[in-house]
Amino acid sequence: VKNQTLKDLGEAAIIRLIEKKAPLSSRGHVKKGIGDDAAVLEPGRDSVQLVTIDTLIEGIHFTARTLSPEALGWKALVVNMSDIAAMGGSPRTAFLSLGMTPDTEVIFISSFMAGFNAAAQKADIALAGGDIVATLASKIVTVTLLGECPAEQVIYRSGARPGHDVWITGFLGNAAAGLFLLLSEDAPDPSAYESLVLAHQKPMPRHEVGQALGRNRFAKAMIDVSDGIAGDLAHICRESGTGAVIQVASLPLSAELRKLAAEVNKDPLDWALHGGEDYELLFTASPADEQQILSLTASVLGIPAVKVGRIIDGQGIWLETEQGKKAITSGGYTHF
Amino acid sequence: VKNQTLKDLGEAAIIRLIEKKAPLSSRGHVKKGIGDDAAVLEPGRDSVQLVTIDTLIEGIHFTARTLSPEALGWKALVVNMSDIAAMGGSPRTAFLSLGMTPDTEVIFISSFMAGFNAAAQKADIALAGGDIVATLASKIVTVTLLGECPAEQVIYRSGARPGHDVWITGFLGNAAAGLFLLLSEDAPDPSAYESLVLAHQKPMPRHEVGQALGRNRFAKAMIDVSDGIAGDLAHICRESGTGAVIQVASLPLSAELRKLAAEVNKDPLDWALHGGEDYELLFTASPADEQQILSLTASVLGIPAVKVGRIIDGQGIWLETEQGKKAITSGGYTHF
Repeated sequence: VKNQTLKDLGEAAIIRLIEKKAPLSSRGHVKKGIGDDAAVLEPGRDSVQLVTIDTLIEGIHFTARTLSPEALGWKALVVNMSDIAAMGGSPRTAFLSLGMTPDTEVIFISSFMAGFNAAAQKADIALAGGDIVATLASKIVTVTLLGECPAEQVIYRSGARPGHDVWITGFLGNAAAGLFLLLSEDAPDPSAYESLVLAHQKPMPRHEVGQALGRNRFAKAMIDVSDGIAGDLAHICRESGTGAVIQVASLPLSAELRKLAAEVNKDPLDWALHGGEDYELLFTASPADEQQILSLTASVLGIPAVKVGRIIDGQGIWLETEQGKKAITSGGYTHF
Repeated sequence: VKNQTLKDLGEAAIIRLIEKKAPLSSRGHVKKGIGDDAAVLEPGRDSVQLVTIDTLIEGIHFTARTLSPEALGWKALVVNMSDIAAMGGSPRTAFLSLGMTPDTEVIFISSFMAGFNAAAQKADIALAGGDIVATLASKIVTVTLLGECPAEQVIYRSGARPGHDVWITGFLGNAAAGLFLLLSEDAPDPSAYESLVLAHQKPMPRHEVGQALGRNRFAKAMIDVSDGIAGDLAHICRESGTGAVIQVASLPLSAELRKLAAEVNKDPLDWALHGGEDYELLFTASPADEQQILSLTASVLGIPAVKVGRIIDGQGIWLETEQGKKAITSGGYTHF
């Protein structure tokens, strides 16, 4: 039915629609999914379990202008996959809590689920439960994602040691530049910078490289870059009791990012250091493993990870340029 | 600081405040809680895992008038404990996603956590992670709760068979009557009906009786009464392919409920059948187990569970009175 709303459809039918479109996993670990008081899962027998939860709120994290329903479904799962990846784990089972206004069109849910499914299929993730509630105004999406990892392969934020190299799995700043394109009134036409917009709308899940770095014990500390590398590297340093130096010339800035920055007279470094939402993995490793890391990440990602700095004794995050070293404040996105 | 808000405090300090007040579990299964990309848990080795998620939204599920911050914290966890209890499981690990407006006072969070903690301590539940985001208007609380259960003791909705008795672990309708007292302009003074208001604000977790009914294999199908017994019994019947008869004279209605109904000229049956939020357990059992169920529930709950009907061949939920039998429509609370 055209323009049918959630209110027209009713709660039971909405849940059936979601159930029909819910991704299943070939792993067979879901003994009971949607349709009872709780989901029943068979845990991995030689693994620890990883759990993460993330909420996206309309008007705060997204608007109809910045994310299509499909992109929202994709991103709601990928931001959680990113957290599991940053522990070196394998994502398994998702739970979806939706808050929707009653006038939301049913097609919104179908499209959302299509995006959610596409992300789930990247890692054979099952949707095993959730809830749906009416809201007064904003749409709200909360995903809880469970994953697994052999206990000895979990990579914490606290494993960085002075002398480690600092690596990043892909471009920095693209997502923030993409958001700028979508939101700023005087920004150039976003269609000229498709890769930047895509970086914001459809971040790629990094679970495969995260798992590979854990399995091979190359990553000693790891985090996903959600608040900007400056802030996220500061998290690693705080947990590890170290400092870090970022070599500015090494930061992977895309050609499109540099081009846009020049066109709108902005410093691409601001986007790269503080922009957030890149969902690349930031990790530290022994310099002895450099060659193996380059070839491993090249084989998994298509392009090798990039060495952007080093862990040092002491405190703080330092920016190293040809002019010397200066301390930077974290300045990542904070909610309050 | 008096009247300090979340905006004054800042995101990192809010998280530290929650971490400081987060319940820990004596079980030692949380290898890493708050403070990394994901929590790391040691799963129970001979159990399946149970997972449930529930969201409470200001203006929909609660207002400042209906729930104090402490009551909100308590209830946000207990509604999830109720789902784990309804599977026969043991709740273990909670994850908390908070959406709060920046002008929320810090004392709100402290009070919320005090209520959350009090509920957690009832079952030795750890808070192992979550997230906090700013919202534009409403407060939002999403709790994901993980539990465990030996595989052969899980109680599904689908286990009801014709001939089973239908049981309930406590009073029906009190929570709905309590909400009426809190919301209705022409309701009598709530302080005269404290037990009804408490039933809405501070439902008791039923995990102990749920586990006992599973361990002893007495409950064959089970659900928690969140939408009213009529609707929730209909869920059991739909999943089990049966019908059910409710004996009206057997329904446990409290003296306060009857008194209030008389005072405001309402039918207490409406609250009991369709009111919702009682969070008692509804289960079916073989008539052969009646005496053992009475003594088991009396020993766990203080008062015995009450037999309120029976499972029959066919479809539908029937209400049996001295005047005969009539079909009822479910009529429970639905969101859309």
